[in-house]
Formats: sequence, structure tokens, C-alpha cells
Amino acid sequence: MIYLDNAATSYPKPPSVYRELVRHITAPMGNPGRSGHRLSREAAGLIYQTREVLARLCGVKDPTGIVLTSGATASLNMAIHGICRGFHRRGILPLAVTDVFEHNSVLRPLFALEREGSLRLKILSPEEDGNLSAGHLLSLDPQMVILTCRSNVTGHHFPLRETLETLRRRGCVVIADGAQAVGSEPCSPEAFGADILCAPGHKGLMGIMGAGFLALRPDCPFLPEPLFSGGSGSASFEEEMPPFLPDRLEAGTPPLAAIAAMGMGASFVLQKGIETIAHGEREMKRLLAEGLSALPQYRMYEPEYQAGPLLFNHRRLTPEALADALEKEGVLVRAGYHCAPLAHRYLGTEETGAVRLSPGAFTTRNQIQITLSVLGKL
Amino acid sequence: MIYLDNAATSYPKPPSVYRELVRHITAPMGNPGRSGHRLSREAAGLIYQTREVLARLCGVKDPTGIVLTSGATASLNMAIHGICRGFHRRGILPLAVTDVFEHNSVLRPLFALEREGSLRLKILSPEEDGNLSAGHLLSLDPQMVILTCRSNVTGHHFPLRETLETLRRRGCVVIADGAQAVGSEPCSPEAFGADILCAPGHKGLMGIMGAGFLALRPDCPFLPEPLFSGGSGSASFEEEMPPFLPDRLEAGTPPLAAIAAMGMGASFVLQKGIETIAHGEREMKRLLAEGLSALPQYRMYEPEYQAGPLLFNHRRLTPEALADALEKEGVLVRAGYHCAPLAHRYLGTEETGAVRLSPGAFTTRNQIQITLSVLGKL
Repeated sequence: MIYLDNAATSYPKPPSVYRELVRHITAPMGNPGRSGHRLSREAAGLIYQTREVLARLCGVKDPTGIVLTSGATASLNMAIHGICRGFHRRGILPLAVTDVFEHNSVLRPLFALEREGSLRLKILSPEEDGNLSAGHLLSLDPQMVILTCRSNVTGHHFPLRETLETLRRRGCVVIADGAQAVGSEPCSPEAFGADILCAPGHKGLMGIMGAGFLALRPDCPFLPEPLFSGGSGSASFEEEMPPFLPDRLEAGTPPLAAIAAMGMGASFVLQKGIETIAHGEREMKRLLAEGLSALPQYRMYEPEYQAGPLLFNHRRLTPEALADALEKEGVLVRAGYHCAPLAHRYLGTEETGAVRLSPGAFTTRNQIQITLSVLGKL
Repeated sequence: MIYLDNAATSYPKPPSVYRELVRHITAPMGNPGRSGHRLSREAAGLIYQTREVLARLCGVKDPTGIVLTSGATASLNMAIHGICRGFHRRGILPLAVTDVFEHNSVLRPLFALEREGSLRLKILSPEEDGNLSAGHLLSLDPQMVILTCRSNVTGHHFPLRETLETLRRRGCVVIADGAQAVGSEPCSPEAFGADILCAPGHKGLMGIMGAGFLALRPDCPFLPEPLFSGGSGSASFEEEMPPFLPDRLEAGTPPLAAIAAMGMGASFVLQKGIETIAHGEREMKRLLAEGLSALPQYRMYEPEYQAGPLLFNHRRLTPEALADALEKEGVLVRAGYHCAPLAHRYLGTEETGAVRLSPGAFTTRNQIQITLSVLGKL
């Protein structure tokens, strides 16, 4: 089996993640931050360790700036709804700007808020150089900008740090969707020009599905308002969630096993070196693009982006037929729209979708060669 | 170690849950409903099996009426916010009625909605018989009623099925918090008189932290509006979440391992027989109450409720000191407010909190005897 669907979820995981999960699952575990007994304290310690390693990974000094969630979709909804509500509380109806390469976990919350009149929304397309126009962004003068660190279909990205910092100085809040980037390349709110970086635990961090986080930059002008609320194990008599992080945004029992796996995966990434992982993944994509360019039956989309998945189509087979044919030879990929409708419209693949090859930290040259040889015969 | 903190999270789990988790974690797993390849299809099958077993457990005929979530707090927020927004869409500012025995995962979402003017809120106290006044409820004529199936501090509950059904016929939507009841006693939306039953996977169902669900009765007058949105793996070009269940309420990658564990735990409960489990837990509580009533240094709160935790205090030691003393002898319990502030106000324990003993499906008579003997010496 050759697994090239890491953009959906990573496989395999590092051995330390498997070991941690089995240890975690077979040892007694309490509910963290709820009771005072040993099992509860141990669980709370595990959570704190994960916060620390994620803070280190994302260049956030204070581990309380890491808010643990149930996944990237939850993180993005909490950031987008929470910042939008924060502007309302300040008497501002925000203008939110985003782009066509966003995933539905960004687009749908924004569309929902636009429909209910909670914000105004502007969706930008790339200029000829692939980037968004800095001048246009500055002239729009938005209160919220939401951008992907790396598209989940082609790896498209927008190097706009200076522009975003200028907007931030004017009071704009910038949210970065790190779903495809965290764990696969150096990522921090500061390096991106963002206030909040959102990420899942099961993709680049190679944990299991069911955990994610927000990394908040300390000078974010205000905290997101809670999207949902509940037990915080603190300040129980207060009608509101506690005002301090991370409690304010962490309602209810946390997904302990998935958090532990995310922490262990993040430790693995730090140990192996994120530049090493990034270089390896870029190299696999380069080999794929080079191989495919020699096969006239295929068409690639934006292979010039060096990181992220490679999107392509067979000139005669449908994406689904191509994916099925690959699976028969043991190569697992994803065909379709990848929850990124506007990206496919932009790329001209709206009618059919396309096939995505997404290597991961454990993909080998040999696997890429076999994949290319299978593709050559179709 | 004697673990009497099952109301916070269950321990131990059934052997089948451990086995399933280890199998699940060490075998390759794809992202369910995202890609079309084998690993993704297998994951989707696991999700469907869990939906089926939960539907059977909760007396819901159609498994698509089971919406999988990241936990009971998420379920309750999705139900409460979602139904409130559904009323707004129909031009109605709802009156919501709840009671003092609710957990902060019910109270805080309701307070948040009341603060922003999205609903009117009325919180009822029990009458002398412990139940809420049916006449009062009917005269309030609310659009939303949110009630616990069983309090997380004393097991207090409100048998109001007929009244709730009358309200439902008038268009009221009833939400039941099954956090402490599902898996520990027979529970279904219909038997409670509810439209929506909310539950976690890691308490009575003995899975791990990180999953939960909503069970929707088919004649619920409308579906909850989505609280958060994102990729659904379906209808990607639609700006809204799909109109059908469960996709409408399931945004993003599901917490697969926790869902698998919840399904395996629910199967265990069905196999062992829910009446058998309920009887066993009541018997453990009866033994605790009987033993404590012979020890004059203790005071119990509402021991007449046969199911659920036993809440009590030492007449001289603080709850924390009592919990610490118990832990020194190997007995793990929870002291404090248990995220149920109004219940403690009602019980007169607002100043100190209290200690909660919560047996589970695997608690033995011997463990209860040892606990009582330790308590006798303090």
C-alpha cells in the first residue's frame, strides 16, 4: 500500500505516537482539571505538556496562548465567529476578507456570518503572480483577514507578512488556517503576520483525528468570544466562561487521547527537525511533478508551488476512475473537490474535480517511483 | 485503587473497548467520508456502525438521527444554540425554561444567549416533592425546555414526560441532557418526552474522552441550525451545510478513535443489559448511603435519589481535606462544585462545595465496603 492522502489525514504515524496512544489507552486516566485526585492531576499534566510543545513548535512564548480544541474546523469556527463577535461587542460590523483558495471550514463559517448580517465579506482571487494584491488589501482596510498558510489542493500560498502587519497595526485581526502547513513547514502566528493560527492534530502533526488547537499571539487586540461554553473546572459560579486563557475557550472535557497523540507528534516533528520534514515533502512533490510532466496523458495544476499536494487530472479518465485505477495498484489518493469549491472554480476544474497526491513525512522515493510507474501505464 | 469518580469519566473501560482502541490505533485508518479509497471507506463503515448501535441504544429508528460530536458539551451547545436560532429563523424570540440542577454546559450557553438578547430565560427550582411544577411549566408555555435526565451531583431528576409531551404538541422543543444517564439507565428521547437527547461517549458508555452525540427524535419540528460549519465531504459547492442529517451538523473530520470506542462501549452496555447495569449502580449507591447513615460525622444530600452519585460532606473536614484523606487510602473521588453552581446553592453547599462518590458499571461491593471502612475512621 502506498498512501498519498496525507492532506486528508496522516499515515503512518511516528512510532512514538503509537506507543503513547497504547500506553495512554491502557493506563488509568482521569478527567483533567475536574477532580483533584492523582489520575486527574496526571491528565492535567499531559495537557500542559502538550500545550508546552505546541507553544514551542509555533513560536508562542506563553503556553496559555495555546487553546486546545477538537480539530481544525472547531479552531477555525472558534476564531472566525469569536473575533466577529468581539468586533460586535466593540460596536463594529466587520469587513472580512478571504480568498478563493480557502477550505469550506473557512468559507462556510464566513458565508453563515454574512447571511445573518454579522459581517460583510469580500473574497479575493490571486493576481498574475499568484499572490493577492497588497494594494487592494490595504485599500479595502478590513477588520478581519482569513488566509490559508497553504492550500489543501495545490499548496498555493500568499506571502503577505508585511501587508498583514500593516493591517494589524490598524486594528485588523488576522486568522491563519494552518491545517495543511503546521508540522510540514515552520509556522508561527508572527512569521505569517497573523494574530491566530489554527491547526489540526492529525495531519502534519501526525496525531489521531479528534484534536486541534489555536495559537494566539500575545498582542492579539482582544480574545475571541467563546463560540460554545460549559464546564471549565474553574470559576464555576460565574455565568460566563472565565476571562482568562486557555479556560475561556476550552469548555467541557478535552479529548485527552487525541491531545496526547498531537503532543507526541509535535515532539517528533521538533526532534526530526521541521526543515528536514519540509525539505523531504518538497522533494517528493518535485519528483512527482517531474515524472508527471513527462507523461502527456496528464495535466497538472499549479505544480510550481513546491510544498503541499500535487493536483492533476488524466486527459481522458475521470478523477474518480483514475483514483480507482490507482487503488487497484495499491496507491491511495483522493479525487473530487477536497472541500475547496472556489479553488476548483479558479483552476477550471469545477466540472470534474481533480486528483490530489499528498505525500507525508514518511513517503519514500521508492513509493513515488512506483506511483509514477503505475501512472505511466494508465 | 478504588475509583469513585465515574461521573467525571469512567474507569475502567470494558475489555472490548481497550481491544478496539488498540486495534484501531495500530491499524491504518483513513479520513471517513473524505476520500474514496479503502481506508477511508473502512473508517466510514466504523462511523456507520457506531451510529447504528447508538440508535439502537437510544430507541431512534433511523441511524441518521444520531449526530456524532466531540462530546456532551458540544452536543448541548449545538442543540441549545441550534434550536434557539431555528426559532429566530421562524421569527420567534424563544422563552427557554431550565432548572437549578443543570450543569454549566447547559447553564452557560443559556446565560450567553440571554445576555445577547437571543432568548428569555427562566430557571425553576424543584417543588417539595422534588419535581418541577407541571402546572407552572404549562402556564409559562415556553418554546424551549432544557432538563437533565439525572443531576451530576445527586442524581436528582424530573419525571415530567406527560407535561413535556403536552408542551411539544404546542411547538415547544425539549432538550434532554443525558450526560449522566446514557449508558447507566434506559434513555431515549421518546421516553423522556424530549426532541433531542445529548450525551458523551466517555461516561456511561465507557469510551474515551473526545466523542459524544445528539439523538434526534424524527418528529422534532425542525433541525437545529448548525453552530459551526465546514467540510462535510458532501455538496461541497453549497455555501451552507447540507440540509440533511447527519451531514448538516457534522462539520470537519470526526474524532474517529473516540467514536469507535463509544460504539464499542455502547455495544458492551447493550450486551450486558442496561437494566443490569442500572441495577448494579443503584445497589452500590444504596450500600454507600446505608453505610454513611450510620456514621454521624457525615451529612448526605438527597440520598433518596436511587441512581447517580452520592453527595455528602464531613461535618468538620472541608470537602478538599476529605477527598485528600480518601486518596491517601486509595479512594479517588471529586470534591468541589462539579460545574453545577445552582445545585449547590439549592442544596445549601454554596460556601464549601461537597464530596461526590460516583460508582460505575465495574464498581464492586468490596470496593464500597473498603470505602465505608475508610470513611468510618476519618
